[in-house]
Amino acid sequence: MDITQLSTQLNQTLNTLRYGEQPAELYEPIRYIMSLGGKRIRPLLVLLAAKMYDDDVENVLLPAAAVEVFHNFTLMHDDIMDKAPLRRGNPTVHEKWDANTAILSGDVMLVRAYEMMLGIAPDKLGKVLQLFSKTAAEVCEGQQLDMNFERRQQVSIEEYIQMITLKTAVLLGFSLELGAILQGAPDSDAEHLKQFGDNVGIAFQLRDDLLDVYGDKDKFGKQVGGDILSDKKTFLMLTALEQANNEQLQTILDWRDKTDADTAEEKVQAITAVYDQLNIRKQTEQQIDYYFQQALYHLEAVQVPIERKATIHGLALQLMERDS
Amino acid sequence: MDITQLSTQLNQTLNTLRYGEQPAELYEPIRYIMSLGGKRIRPLLVLLAAKMYDDDVENVLLPAAAVEVFHNFTLMHDDIMDKAPLRRGNPTVHEKWDANTAILSGDVMLVRAYEMMLGIAPDKLGKVLQLFSKTAAEVCEGQQLDMNFERRQQVSIEEYIQMITLKTAVLLGFSLELGAILQGAPDSDAEHLKQFGDNVGIAFQLRDDLLDVYGDKDKFGKQVGGDILSDKKTFLMLTALEQANNEQLQTILDWRDKTDADTAEEKVQAITAVYDQLNIRKQTEQQIDYYFQQALYHLEAVQVPIERKATIHGLALQLMERDS
Repeated sequence: MDITQLSTQLNQTLNTLRYGEQPAELYEPIRYIMSLGGKRIRPLLVLLAAKMYDDDVENVLLPAAAVEVFHNFTLMHDDIMDKAPLRRGNPTVHEKWDANTAILSGDVMLVRAYEMMLGIAPDKLGKVLQLFSKTAAEVCEGQQLDMNFERRQQVSIEEYIQMITLKTAVLLGFSLELGAILQGAPDSDAEHLKQFGDNVGIAFQLRDDLLDVYGDKDKFGKQVGGDILSDKKTFLMLTALEQANNEQLQTILDWRDKTDADTAEEKVQAITAVYDQLNIRKQTEQQIDYYFQQALYHLEAVQVPIERKATIHGLALQLMERDS
Repeated sequence: MDITQLSTQLNQTLNTLRYGEQPAELYEPIRYIMSLGGKRIRPLLVLLAAKMYDDDVENVLLPAAAVEVFHNFTLMHDDIMDKAPLRRGNPTVHEKWDANTAILSGDVMLVRAYEMMLGIAPDKLGKVLQLFSKTAAEVCEGQQLDMNFERRQQVSIEEYIQMITLKTAVLLGFSLELGAILQGAPDSDAEHLKQFGDNVGIAFQLRDDLLDVYGDKDKFGKQVGGDILSDKKTFLMLTALEQANNEQLQTILDWRDKTDADTAEEKVQAITAVYDQLNIRKQTEQQIDYYFQQALYHLEAVQVPIERKATIHGLALQLMERDS
């Protein structure tokens, strides 16, 4: 199966979407954020799951695009809440326009996402929208937890995993489940694909945390240590806080809230040194591996010929930048 | 038909709704805004339209409640955009908590509103959600137009009517249409009830504009002249601007943007005097009457026995505070 070809089909669908025209202030930001691109990983997962059951995915294109519109709605609103100036290297909607515009345009995007699901066959529509709504609420819960954690002193690893599960993973899981359901897959397959997606999502987010500290700067495309500089409670930081001795804890606490640009490099080095002492890199890699193995277990349990799983398996490996 | 009894049934349904529990920061604001009450006019219209076709409205209660949840979602987000400090005499969500909370809780409310529609029979679900989504997008368009008009110098009467149609009227129309569709009413009846609701909605909003200037202060419950003091482009103001001679126009422009509390009374008197000279009250009453007559025409066209229309007719008269 050719991912490039699926991507082309998907982009054609995304490019022909009509969100509305007037008032322009409402619809222009939607076209803007959707034009910023991105990996389109969620709708691609919808299509890949669908392809496992039927090569004809024509009926799945619009629901797949709906997931991408929903995802971009969450980005538009999250960017307001996080006061993010940039999205994919471009000004965020609330920066380019204003917060009110981003609120209202986002609202319409959520409505359009639902609307784009309405071509689904009547016998499947209720079930799909139930799962979509559950997922949508969970994504909001994840964003709320993320904001709560910023203000809290103590966050457990377990709470952190729950937060990234809700904020990031469940939408990946839903994407795969959606593709399976639309092609009439057995319930147990749809559920295993959902679990596969959830676990890949968690592994992917942990990997994101890891790369922020240990990634190749040129390859990663972000400033190394950005999470450390902004005192983000990542998996690495929370693990370090749990395991630090008094001296290491003191080092972490001493650097907390120090945002001076002059000492930025020193801060990253000091915290990374603590991580190194505590073997945080290895521990994080083990966790990533744990969730990735969980994902593979669920993919294995899906009742289709192994060759039909190859593309999705390959994509997961690619997302993890792994060979096997 | 007993409206009080329907209201009781409706309030029972609204009181048993479960929006979610954790994180509390996400769900508490939803319970808060829903507890502030209000006339619950939209879900009541759903039930009344449904009752025209079947006395058993059990299956309509949850979709009716969904419309109220949707309406309160729009209030929560509009209040952020309008920087409103109070809602029904209580602090708005973004004041009591903060803007981020109001954004995210509102998002979940929109999701829950859709979710509450999902019990609708499969053969009707797609159609209902199509109309609901169309209406939801229109309400956002109306809010955007309202915000645009604040910044614009010139707004035509026609544009104003379009704005209030989208922002306020279409949700009333949809409410009636929803009740009819759920009880298997003929398409033409559903459409006439929709038109009835839209027109009542426009008339109701124009009456709101009128009462702000010419209302009985004690009865109306708001400060008389509030729209004048905030330079709101109401139907009265836009009509006056269109018809004013040079001197009257100068009076209006002289007072514009003057927000000094000391001269508030003088401002209201001066603008009201221009309205009086131009016979704006009478003209507004004529417009209200025009839309109300349109509404009644559509109600008449509905193919049910006249006694089945009595309650809805009575409620419309009551909303207009009219005898016939």
